[in-house]
Amino acid sequence: MTQFPKEAKNKVVRGAKRATYDKETIYEILDAGFLCHISFVMNGEPFMIPTAYARSGDKIYIHGSVKSRAIKQTKAGAPICFCVTHLDGLVLARSAFHHSVNYRSAIIYGHANELVVDAGKNEALHLITENFLKGRWNEVRQPNQKELDITSVLEISIESASAKIRTGSPVDDEEDYALDIWAGTLPVETRYAAPVDDTKLRPGIATSPSAKLAWEESKE
Amino acid sequence: MTQFPKEAKNKVVRGAKRATYDKETIYEILDAGFLCHISFVMNGEPFMIPTAYARSGDKIYIHGSVKSRAIKQTKAGAPICFCVTHLDGLVLARSAFHHSVNYRSAIIYGHANELVVDAGKNEALHLITENFLKGRWNEVRQPNQKELDITSVLEISIESASAKIRTGSPVDDEEDYALDIWAGTLPVETRYAAPVDDTKLRPGIATSPSAKLAWEESKE
Repeated sequence: MTQFPKEAKNKVVRGAKRATYDKETIYEILDAGFLCHISFVMNGEPFMIPTAYARSGDKIYIHGSVKSRAIKQTKAGAPICFCVTHLDGLVLARSAFHHSVNYRSAIIYGHANELVVDAGKNEALHLITENFLKGRWNEVRQPNQKELDITSVLEISIESASAKIRTGSPVDDEEDYALDIWAGTLPVETRYAAPVDDTKLRPGIATSPSAKLAWEESKE
Repeated sequence: MTQFPKEAKNKVVRGAKRATYDKETIYEILDAGFLCHISFVMNGEPFMIPTAYARSGDKIYIHGSVKSRAIKQTKAGAPICFCVTHLDGLVLARSAFHHSVNYRSAIIYGHANELVVDAGKNEALHLITENFLKGRWNEVRQPNQKELDITSVLEISIESASAKIRTGSPVDDEEDYALDIWAGTLPVETRYAAPVDDTKLRPGIATSPSAKLAWEESKE
């Protein structure tokens, strides 16, 4: 199956022509980021947190303190809505009404299972760290038993999903193209600046290859 | 009152030392962005959308199609959780466990009222457009009656809120400072690139001052 089934829950109501249910496209959007927003329900009301994640196959991994409210609630089986949004530009039309943004967003619906075996937790933390900064895991001290014990790691099964993508120029009403108004896009670029040494870095330690590479790649 | 009261709903459980309930700080975080995530509950399950917003006083304004599921659900009085997150950098510690991000995030809890008077709707759309790109409103064709009629504008009253901010170097375990591992931060910069003309722009129309200024300011 290369598409997520279009059901009441994930069906895009507005802007349906910008919607996709294609797995590959949705995974590309997820893999292009490391920071998501997760929402869950508690006492009938919505709550949300930003957090780091990684994807592997049809699973998404997140982690947090065993004491976290979001972790406690979602590991108990509460349904989860998970969103990743990349802002690519401002879309500046001739009318206020047709202003928009160029973006890629994916919305995932699912439930979480807590990983309880240390090896599985460690592997998920490996994935999250590598998705955060490629190459970092092998540069640093890996989790010890105490750290694993105070960290909850959740595996979210992607049960349903959709994505929306907008690219390109504004779309104006036909009669507005005659107006003397500039229209176009203002692209948004997200980049890394040069790595900054920890104020407590011991002398003689060079910047890690992971940080150097990410910075250099983001200049291109 | 310069603080939001700390109650069960908005009390930050984890990372409490990075939390604030200070109104001015929370408003600064809101005013530094224009794209939020909003979550709401439908049939007991969480839903979320990314959308544009603007703040004025203790109110937040959002808009959408009258046909939008999120608009329909939230204008009917469903409680809303609203989040704005600014990513400022990767925090690269000596241990995988102490990796983090530098960020500013604000979480708002409230309910929405639909604005039904055209003048009020128009003023909120003015605020949203100006928060999106300062100076743009007066450059473009403003909403006509048909456009106002098919747009819902919601005013969210901020009933409860909190913010979390992390800045600076990683914080490692005391014994890890002796390790031969580079640690530091990788700052994240979000900038505008040069404005791109609409492919259908009529000849002889110069880039709008709003887009030019935003681009120039983001180079600094």
